[in-house]
Amino acid sequence: MNTEPVRKRILAANDEAARANRERFAASGTLVANLISSPGSGKTTLLSATAERLHHRIRAAAIVGDVATELDAERLRVAGLRAHQIVTGGACHLDARMLAEALPWSGWPAVDLLFVENVGNLVCPSSYDLGEDFKVALVSTTEGHDKPFKYPAIFSRADVTLVTKIDLLPHVDFDLETVRGQVATLNRRARVLEVSARTGEGLEAWCGLLTARLEAKQRAEAVPT
Amino acid sequence: MNTEPVRKRILAANDEAARANRERFAASGTLVANLISSPGSGKTTLLSATAERLHHRIRAAAIVGDVATELDAERLRVAGLRAHQIVTGGACHLDARMLAEALPWSGWPAVDLLFVENVGNLVCPSSYDLGEDFKVALVSTTEGHDKPFKYPAIFSRADVTLVTKIDLLPHVDFDLETVRGQVATLNRRARVLEVSARTGEGLEAWCGLLTARLEAKQRAEAVPT
Repeated sequence: MNTEPVRKRILAANDEAARANRERFAASGTLVANLISSPGSGKTTLLSATAERLHHRIRAAAIVGDVATELDAERLRVAGLRAHQIVTGGACHLDARMLAEALPWSGWPAVDLLFVENVGNLVCPSSYDLGEDFKVALVSTTEGHDKPFKYPAIFSRADVTLVTKIDLLPHVDFDLETVRGQVATLNRRARVLEVSARTGEGLEAWCGLLTARLEAKQRAEAVPT
Repeated sequence: MNTEPVRKRILAANDEAARANRERFAASGTLVANLISSPGSGKTTLLSATAERLHHRIRAAAIVGDVATELDAERLRVAGLRAHQIVTGGACHLDARMLAEALPWSGWPAVDLLFVENVGNLVCPSSYDLGEDFKVALVSTTEGHDKPFKYPAIFSRADVTLVTKIDLLPHVDFDLETVRGQVATLNRRARVLEVSARTGEGLEAWCGLLTARLEAKQRAEAVPT
């Protein structure tokens, strides 16, 4: 059974919705980061730690996708982040229309930085543009250093790869240079940062990247055309 | 765009192919276990350790699914397991037809125990029956104890849940009783085993479960009807 025509129609409709989202985010000067990883790589924990650091400087919010439960949005609210949960009910990724429908609950447009925490999945979310400014791929030190080559779609499309749980490095068989080499092969402009939400290692660089990108976007939008 | 009719047709075609696989496995007395987890939960490492233990007792083989690369099959061959790689080229799960087409390369029908290592993904593979005898869900101690409720489809369908990387328990925030409770809520007959492929902890129980299931299947097939 050839499902390719259906897939193409779905992706074309998604691209159109993503373009509309991107125009909205340009108009409001909102920077949008789409976080993608396996289940349990630490997306929610990272966002909690990020929110605590940026809290006084930037108006941030999160839209979180999961197949089931509202657990992640609840955790982010505890960390002080305005968070809205999308329960996909089986779908293995968010799409641009889901994001558009969730926007009114996120506090947008009065938000400078919008995190989208995608469904925990290294495969499906990589094909769906949400209208974000950039994708962030996370891989934890406990998952093994072979992941970029095994899941090339996401690591070639992500501007930033975060190696998470760097504090567990002494306890696992994980070679950072292998990950850096694989990511560079797939996307030579990608940034690779090492972070630990538990110890705080690397969070300054990560938050610096976010604020620099936000300033660049808001400066660009402010230029009269 | 309503894609539900397409999805139903795909699943119906898959169920038919799965039935055919199941009949073949019954005829050859082959026990088939379908292993499903996030990327990096330790499926390949577990199978390597399992193969080393069962090697002299059972004729075993593995069929491995990945979006890209043949890395996993190569690792399994190093461990002495006959292994065939299916590269799905983007598909987020194996289906019954892919398994049927791969069978001739696995050494089947002269195989007692066939492991199917599915694509690293906690969502998509859960909907696709491959004709296996049972599904095994893996969750590693580094992924967090909230996974069964967040990915209920697979944990409710798996006869066995393996909590892997149990040796890392002292270094992570992971509550075994929460996982056991969530799995029991979703599937009260499911077995939950704790294993570490690195230290060998729990592997005796896991291999015992496999050999008991294999003996039961071959005994059942031998009964004249």
